[in-house]
Amino acid sequence: MDSWRLNGNSLETAGSGLTPEDRGLAYGDGLFETIAIRNGRLRFIERHLARLRDGSERLGIALPDYVSDELQTAAQDTEHGTLKLILTRGTGERGYNPAGATTPNLYVGVSAAISVSPAPEAIGITATVCKTTVSVNPLLAGLKTLNRLEQVMARAEWSDAGVREGLMLDTNGHVISGTMSNVFAVIDNQLCTPDLQSAGIAGVMRSVILDAAGIDASVRNIPLAEFLTASEAFFSNSLIGLWPVVSLPHNGTQLALTPGPYTDAERTALVSLGVEECSR
Amino acid sequence: MDSWRLNGNSLETAGSGLTPEDRGLAYGDGLFETIAIRNGRLRFIERHLARLRDGSERLGIALPDYVSDELQTAAQDTEHGTLKLILTRGTGERGYNPAGATTPNLYVGVSAAISVSPAPEAIGITATVCKTTVSVNPLLAGLKTLNRLEQVMARAEWSDAGVREGLMLDTNGHVISGTMSNVFAVIDNQLCTPDLQSAGIAGVMRSVILDAAGIDASVRNIPLAEFLTASEAFFSNSLIGLWPVVSLPHNGTQLALTPGPYTDAERTALVSLGVEECSR
Repeated sequence: MDSWRLNGNSLETAGSGLTPEDRGLAYGDGLFETIAIRNGRLRFIERHLARLRDGSERLGIALPDYVSDELQTAAQDTEHGTLKLILTRGTGERGYNPAGATTPNLYVGVSAAISVSPAPEAIGITATVCKTTVSVNPLLAGLKTLNRLEQVMARAEWSDAGVREGLMLDTNGHVISGTMSNVFAVIDNQLCTPDLQSAGIAGVMRSVILDAAGIDASVRNIPLAEFLTASEAFFSNSLIGLWPVVSLPHNGTQLALTPGPYTDAERTALVSLGVEECSR
Repeated sequence: MDSWRLNGNSLETAGSGLTPEDRGLAYGDGLFETIAIRNGRLRFIERHLARLRDGSERLGIALPDYVSDELQTAAQDTEHGTLKLILTRGTGERGYNPAGATTPNLYVGVSAAISVSPAPEAIGITATVCKTTVSVNPLLAGLKTLNRLEQVMARAEWSDAGVREGLMLDTNGHVISGTMSNVFAVIDNQLCTPDLQSAGIAGVMRSVILDAAGIDASVRNIPLAEFLTASEAFFSNSLIGLWPVVSLPHNGTQLALTPGPYTDAERTALVSLGVEECSR
């Protein structure tokens, strides 16, 4: 990030609030959002705020009432870029008990480094199947918490720059997501995406795709073997829009895919909603 | 903590190293240790360092070679207290990929607030059975990582000050640990503790107990129903030594226990190893 703010002030001014005692560092006790700034606006801001509100309620962290204004303030001088928000439970007594920690910390960072023209990977990427699994935990499922070590370890599995994303399964062998994205597949002429009631992060771009008019998607458990019969597949997240999968090597075989009518329809729908990255 | 150091310097001097970009905050990408300082010494320091070394190898974080000296420096003016160490992967490029983050951050905090005389809870505590589960993930099992939101949510389940610990199960219904401790039970005249190959943290006090001469413990899966047939049970961690369980209410019934010969033997063994909290 190019600059950070903390609790409504520039980080330099608020410096004393930054401490290793923050439960966000100690325990990953908090949430984050990564929001695309496009043409001076925070894209899908209401969806990001809705997920943040849901998460803060489920974790019992009081969401500061100035959060929406703060995000606008942080983003105001940026035409295209990325805003990252970190909401932690703040500091409290030593130990896991959150009862004493009643003043959350809100970090907001902005960077202006992103390209919004379609990247080569928007045409289609090679993905891998990760060995690192996503934990099953219904209490935390769907939330974008600061506990992301599984994604870090999954992403560390490959260093080949030609591989752009990794498919993650839960401990039951169901496909859950990419390391930094959600995933969709067309199986038997039906668009599907994993059910995230017990694992994974419910992405904002995923929700945009699910709500897009014209294509109904089935939200359900997808075993890997079934995923590998897909005729189309794509990853989605807030910053990339969607990335079609064209190649998925696994256990010595290779699933070769071509973006087809479902991918094209979603891409068109996303472009109409302001996801310029999906234009070709 | 009363004071913190970062990367071998006081936090004030090293202030510029403290940043919201630390992957410890962003993703919980790191490890921690909580070490008792007793009579001016870091108790069981070699075991803590061994776990930290194992963890840093498994996560691929380079452990700074000055870590041992740094801990001694931080603790040197403290007779009785607690040292907390946080090792993170440091900062790097945006995103989960750890490849660019090659300079770890080492935070060390010391507080001198702890009493070492036996607390009332050393005589026996009431515990509860938590609804929040411990995730199954063999890749991270055993490690004391910064991803501890499950423990936070489990500890948030009760506010009754008379309840001192909560028993946590994994998603398969096996007993794994307390929220901040490991757990032992005597079942059919055999001391047992959960196998932590797929979930939980392998505690230092647990390893001391397992290595203590005289009592062999069985390390295995323990379903809750079996745990509830125990004749003795206790929780252990580095700061408390062991806490016998005398009461464990569950689903309307109440398991009442009395510390017996196994608990007494372990208490005696721990006192001889310097765990004064276990003397009565």
